[in-house]
Amino acid sequence: MSPIYLDNNATTRTDPAVVAAMSPFFTEHFGNASSTHSFGSEVSGAVKRARQSLQALLGAAFDHELIFTSGGTESNSSAILSGLAAQPGCDEIITSTVEHPAILSLVGHIAKSNGVKVHYIAVDGRGALDVEAYRAALGPRTAMVSFMWANNETGVLFPVAELAEMAHEHGALFHTDAVQAAGKIKIDLKAANIDMLSLSGHKLHGPKGIGALYVRKGVKFHPLLRGGQQERGRRGGTENAPGIVGLGKAAELASEDLEGAVSKLRSLRDRLEQGLLASIDHCRISGGEADRLPNTCNIAFEHIDGEAILANLNREGVAASSGSACTSGSTEPSHVLRAMGVPASALHGVVRFSLSRETTVEEVDRVLGLLPAIIQKLRAMSPLWRDRQPNAELTASNTA
Amino acid sequence: MSPIYLDNNATTRTDPAVVAAMSPFFTEHFGNASSTHSFGSEVSGAVKRARQSLQALLGAAFDHELIFTSGGTESNSSAILSGLAAQPGCDEIITSTVEHPAILSLVGHIAKSNGVKVHYIAVDGRGALDVEAYRAALGPRTAMVSFMWANNETGVLFPVAELAEMAHEHGALFHTDAVQAAGKIKIDLKAANIDMLSLSGHKLHGPKGIGALYVRKGVKFHPLLRGGQQERGRRGGTENAPGIVGLGKAAELASEDLEGAVSKLRSLRDRLEQGLLASIDHCRISGGEADRLPNTCNIAFEHIDGEAILANLNREGVAASSGSACTSGSTEPSHVLRAMGVPASALHGVVRFSLSRETTVEEVDRVLGLLPAIIQKLRAMSPLWRDRQPNAELTASNTA
Ligand SMILES: Cc1ncc(COP(=O)(O)O)c(C=O)c1O
Ligand SMILES: Cc1ncc(COP(=O)(O)O)c(C=O)c1O
Repeated sequence: MSPIYLDNNATTRTDPAVVAAMSPFFTEHFGNASSTHSFGSEVSGAVKRARQSLQALLGAAFDHELIFTSGGTESNSSAILSGLAAQPGCDEIITSTVEHPAILSLVGHIAKSNGVKVHYIAVDGRGALDVEAYRAALGPRTAMVSFMWANNETGVLFPVAELAEMAHEHGALFHTDAVQAAGKIKIDLKAANIDMLSLSGHKLHGPKGIGALYVRKGVKFHPLLRGGQQERGRRGGTENAPGIVGLGKAAELASEDLEGAVSKLRSLRDRLEQGLLASIDHCRISGGEADRLPNTCNIAFEHIDGEAILANLNREGVAASSGSACTSGSTEPSHVLRAMGVPASALHGVVRFSLSRETTVEEVDRVLGLLPAIIQKLRAMSPLWRDRQPNAELTASNTA
Repeated sequence: MSPIYLDNNATTRTDPAVVAAMSPFFTEHFGNASSTHSFGSEVSGAVKRARQSLQALLGAAFDHELIFTSGGTESNSSAILSGLAAQPGCDEIITSTVEHPAILSLVGHIAKSNGVKVHYIAVDGRGALDVEAYRAALGPRTAMVSFMWANNETGVLFPVAELAEMAHEHGALFHTDAVQAAGKIKIDLKAANIDMLSLSGHKLHGPKGIGALYVRKGVKFHPLLRGGQQERGRRGGTENAPGIVGLGKAAELASEDLEGAVSKLRSLRDRLEQGLLASIDHCRISGGEADRLPNTCNIAFEHIDGEAILANLNREGVAASSGSACTSGSTEPSHVLRAMGVPASALHGVVRFSLSRETTVEEVDRVLGLLPAIIQKLRAMSPLWRDRQPNAELTASNTA
């Protein structure tokens, strides 16, 4: 039986149409986009078209608001460090407790090395941001606010347009890590007053090693990578033309029928969740009551080890994950779920299923057929399960 | 007639074997190398093999001395900033006047923003470093020395192993920008005590958007891009698996018969140079008397505009450049040639031909057939040529 890939928040399959679009830029149109001869000019035209496709996906006002980077991590770092440099005299950053490590380890480092003060805004049990705490943290010293658009583990969405308005009231810059949102939900940067936005190609069926940072026209930008005059002097380094063209194509494909894709994904995801909740007890969807991505199902099984579940699924050809691939292999429970107050009895039994437009009903149904037996088998062997205390909260949400 | 590409120092054609090696990692083995399921593990194995190929190319002692980055610019920035962070109390950097913009614009920025003092060591007319000035600049406050291995415009080589020893005598770290050297000349890091070395995939028939930084075991490293635990916590961001595999394959291909490639390239390059010097007067090879890369010919034609030469060549299907692609389009004369004291009369008439293992005798001969007439035509139209003063230096080196 062919394997089932339900780990699309970690990375997606590059769309064959994306590969086809990239392919001439390796051996045929291989010039340096900054070269003035014809090998260069045919590449720079393609780079421009890719920038426009990305502009369209995001509803940006100008194509030059987009800077190509090597991925989400570089975009995030560039944004945060630029925002700090652009606001001299301001030495505070506001972010949330549930951000991706690409934000958390950077701001943690800045706090230690530069003496910048970081406010970590908490979330509640549904994953929603504590907006009152955010309001209280904002002040004249706030240089930069960075909140993710969609959480990579739970899919929970933050109301970034509102959060950006609040930042602007205090003269702070607003960045959003939209690595998980871009291509999965509608983004319209003409409607939301966001200063900077990060995305990564491989999360939307584009290639790995390419990403973009949106910087609103008029927002001062301080480059992280200095070198040649590429990207209008905002990001040095020879343009990754195949990657850029691939990202452009991925943006085009994602734009094509976004609404259709969203509703298809949501119905598949809901089928998976309802099936699991109906057939397995003592489990709970994290973030299930919040506004969230249509493709993400984060489910916690009580009194059981998530890695064991994943290993069993893997043996059956099903790839899922316990959360962020960046921390996979570690036995630390998820910082996101801890921040949401998931009870200790469930913190270690977490499985994230993340679907894509390539996921089929048959695949979902196969997982629904497999998982109850796996959970039952593992629980039968688990001393945690044998010695469990009744847990009202989980049972309740299961029957919800 | 098929076009002739002689701008390989700007970028090279991705080798078809490299593309073939990458291709399964887009749509088939597309997993996240950090994922624990089988989609991930098959990728992490390939990443490991690529690291070993790069290790072999460089003669590094351990594969984990190599960190994959997005290219030469990121590697250079990471090295310099890490070196500074690793040597607290030391606030001086030494580099040369002829480095690539990826070094010069970074250190210029650090000098302004962090108050770091930068010593720029000059070169002589042959392009050789002023080693006495370097010795004088070294001191207890030197954090970091960075000298390029091979110059991108002239191909001139610096004696980096010696220069590194001198740095170490003063407790400074030594980095070399080997973006133009890697894959073109023999590098043996077991024999040279270099702390950090940068390279970029697309300069050695690998893909764009991937590079590496070598960090000798035991040398403290401070990451530039923080995020997940990829690259042993030294470079965050989802691994660019296709790019990494492509770079590994490119390293393998370059290692295969490096000596043979070098001598073939050198003889082609010499044929080109001797032909041009024999058929065109008032021209001169920059760096021609120095130890240099086998593939690079930087030739200055007096009293004439290099961009006009390039445009005429381009019309005939020949791609060459005036120097760095990063500064192409600008009318500023090359900082490298100015540093070498190339006379003003020749500074604007510069053409860099950079060959690759794909270059043929027929291509060289076609250029030899075309260029004299182009130069003659342009000089006939050039007021600079009409009003020229005799210039002993250039005429002399032409007849050399
Ligand atoms: C000597 C040198 N260093 C650094 C670079 C930058 O490499 P990349 O463009 O891959 O970032 C280049 C090429 O552009 C180069 O020739
Ligand atoms: C929310 C979020 N931000 C940032 C990143 C980092 O992106 P990349 O791995 O492409 O650098 C990821 C994915 O790994 C992510 O899910």
